[in-house]
Amino acid sequence: MERNGILSGLKVLDLTRILAGPYCCMMLADMGADVIKIEMPQSGDDSRRFGPFVNGESAYFMNLNRNKRGMTLNLKSAEGKEIFLKLVEKCDMVVENYRPGTMEKLGLDYATLKARNPAIILGSISGFGQYGPYHERPGYDIIAQAMSGLMSTTGWPDGEPTRTSTAIGDVLGGLGCAIGLLAAYVRRLKTGEGERIDVSLVDSVVSGLEVINQIYLSSGRNPQRSGNRYESAYPYDSFKTANGSFVMSCANDKLFSKLCEIMNMPELEADERFCSNKNRVQNHAPMKRIIEDWLADKSADEMVEKLTEVGIPAAPILDIAQVTADPHIADAREMFVPVDHPVAGNMKITGNQIKLSQNPIQFERAAPTLGQHTAEILREYLDVSREELARLSAEGVL
Amino acid sequence: MERNGILSGLKVLDLTRILAGPYCCMMLADMGADVIKIEMPQSGDDSRRFGPFVNGESAYFMNLNRNKRGMTLNLKSAEGKEIFLKLVEKCDMVVENYRPGTMEKLGLDYATLKARNPAIILGSISGFGQYGPYHERPGYDIIAQAMSGLMSTTGWPDGEPTRTSTAIGDVLGGLGCAIGLLAAYVRRLKTGEGERIDVSLVDSVVSGLEVINQIYLSSGRNPQRSGNRYESAYPYDSFKTANGSFVMSCANDKLFSKLCEIMNMPELEADERFCSNKNRVQNHAPMKRIIEDWLADKSADEMVEKLTEVGIPAAPILDIAQVTADPHIADAREMFVPVDHPVAGNMKITGNQIKLSQNPIQFERAAPTLGQHTAEILREYLDVSREELARLSAEGVL
Repeated sequence: MERNGILSGLKVLDLTRILAGPYCCMMLADMGADVIKIEMPQSGDDSRRFGPFVNGESAYFMNLNRNKRGMTLNLKSAEGKEIFLKLVEKCDMVVENYRPGTMEKLGLDYATLKARNPAIILGSISGFGQYGPYHERPGYDIIAQAMSGLMSTTGWPDGEPTRTSTAIGDVLGGLGCAIGLLAAYVRRLKTGEGERIDVSLVDSVVSGLEVINQIYLSSGRNPQRSGNRYESAYPYDSFKTANGSFVMSCANDKLFSKLCEIMNMPELEADERFCSNKNRVQNHAPMKRIIEDWLADKSADEMVEKLTEVGIPAAPILDIAQVTADPHIADAREMFVPVDHPVAGNMKITGNQIKLSQNPIQFERAAPTLGQHTAEILREYLDVSREELARLSAEGVL
Repeated sequence: MERNGILSGLKVLDLTRILAGPYCCMMLADMGADVIKIEMPQSGDDSRRFGPFVNGESAYFMNLNRNKRGMTLNLKSAEGKEIFLKLVEKCDMVVENYRPGTMEKLGLDYATLKARNPAIILGSISGFGQYGPYHERPGYDIIAQAMSGLMSTTGWPDGEPTRTSTAIGDVLGGLGCAIGLLAAYVRRLKTGEGERIDVSLVDSVVSGLEVINQIYLSSGRNPQRSGNRYESAYPYDSFKTANGSFVMSCANDKLFSKLCEIMNMPELEADERFCSNKNRVQNHAPMKRIIEDWLADKSADEMVEKLTEVGIPAAPILDIAQVTADPHIADAREMFVPVDHPVAGNMKITGNQIKLSQNPIQFERAAPTLGQHTAEILREYLDVSREELARLSAEGVL
């Protein structure tokens, strides 16, 4: 089914479950691709059983699978496999995030797909990737956060290694795979060739740690946890006030000079400890003490306003309730959008971060209920008759 | 200059600085696009002055700008603008991460670019985006981490809001813009139309927080910091042993049953507090105590090996030195690659996470020194003569 949007006409078979793969395909679906989410009959995507729930429907699932159509198909049955391969003939991409080896066990490896459609693009997301000594290990997000070095460097000098609250390994893996898929589609439009894309959660987080890796690779210093302080500039940190913390980033001398003025401490500019960014980074501890002493009788909101006014980058540390009510983020940038779901009713999900002026992203479809579009898709793509659909359904293929 | 790679033939003008924009264009350059990095004469990208340094060259810069060519061009001069617009006529994309309004002030807004090349794709990355009440505020990574809710939910229940160690807002912004650019290029190949892409760091982090947002949007519960524990499954956390912590994720009953067996505590499976995932999440504190009591005389490495062997997802919490020496990550997955830089010599940078079997990513070029390819690019694209180059250089245009 042709949809509106910048990727109108792109056809994607989405075998993914839980987060990384669904987030990847969500990007394509939000931009107008016809994403067909294929789930096991009866059970479906595991995340259909992940909270929070709205009228018994998983909001976790509904957020990540909006703008897609959904069908059931038992890939373990011979007839299910054949239906899948017939769909492969008519589509541009297959995306999966099974544990490596599963597509091979199902008899649906890249060579098999390619034999049916030489231009097919297969994108795979997994914990450790399709090759390498650990490739068969299951890869949850926390495993990627731990093995990439992200956890060992996040948190406080006197505290424990710390997990980033969101499943950032899954998110980074999903975004990386979407980039690979679109680059491959560009190539396909030019040459007619297909591609096989392999993205791992661990690699994705390692790539995202680039400056931190570079410190070790170039200087041999092993980066440690340093709280909210940035290694390259100071004051670039969180600061306590009378009623909570806020963040500020004076990343150059000009901004630091402005700060000294507001603090009414022009002598700090001449102080040898603070007269250059390099020295301020070295003397971050006394610098922070001086700033926090000055902030002790002030409120965070007042300071953010005052600093922002004179051009010093500063921001409140918002909680999620505040973010969802923020006039910039929620209203102007539309980062929380309403959808109307057949079971859950009117609800809000997270919007898309890619703002396109000529082909804006739309939220035209709530996530599918299990098998909602099975008949529609099979009629449309393979001209399957009503009788045939009934038989396939009765035999557990759909 | 045509390069090898899946994006061979794509021509990108890269006006970006520091991290988010350069990381975005690095993705395109790694995949074979001809990315022309344009820098101010004399000064260049600010990050050329960011440590760590190798033989006086910034490794921060060299990592993010490999596989690109570099030229200088003063966009504030009339002749510089005209040269830029002539390049726009011959290229597919322009990418910038100035503060919103800067391209307009330079006289290089989207309408102007489009007038010279109706199919041009302009991608912009900024802290808050191109519109909305905060759009003119400067947006460093820590600002995005604070305002998106990521900091307020990362860290420990009794601790402070915590910044994720890497500049994850910049990384997410760069990846999101790369997706928008490639989607727009797909459209352009099909219809000849251009596009204007607006990605903000704040929106990008908000999108990455999807399940956390969804908890609040769907249930009204405002997610708080919960250490390394996952909200949806338990035991999915870090655990202390006699010699440090490791992570484990028993996300379902089957895995928990295996764990009880290894712990030699089959009675836990029948214990009402732990008999279902829902109950284990509720009773995470006593569950963690029992597991850590059992681990008190064991080593982390020994446990990771033992648990992995029976199929329970577990991993060590690696530091950066360990990651860079890991046989899977460093050797098999090639996540740290050598480049040969004219000044820095042989050095290592971080590899790319997108593994393409048909058109693998290559690291054929170290990052450019300032203006390294100015003459080459201007001759190649605009047939500028040697004499003209000398004049432009003498007059400070190049």
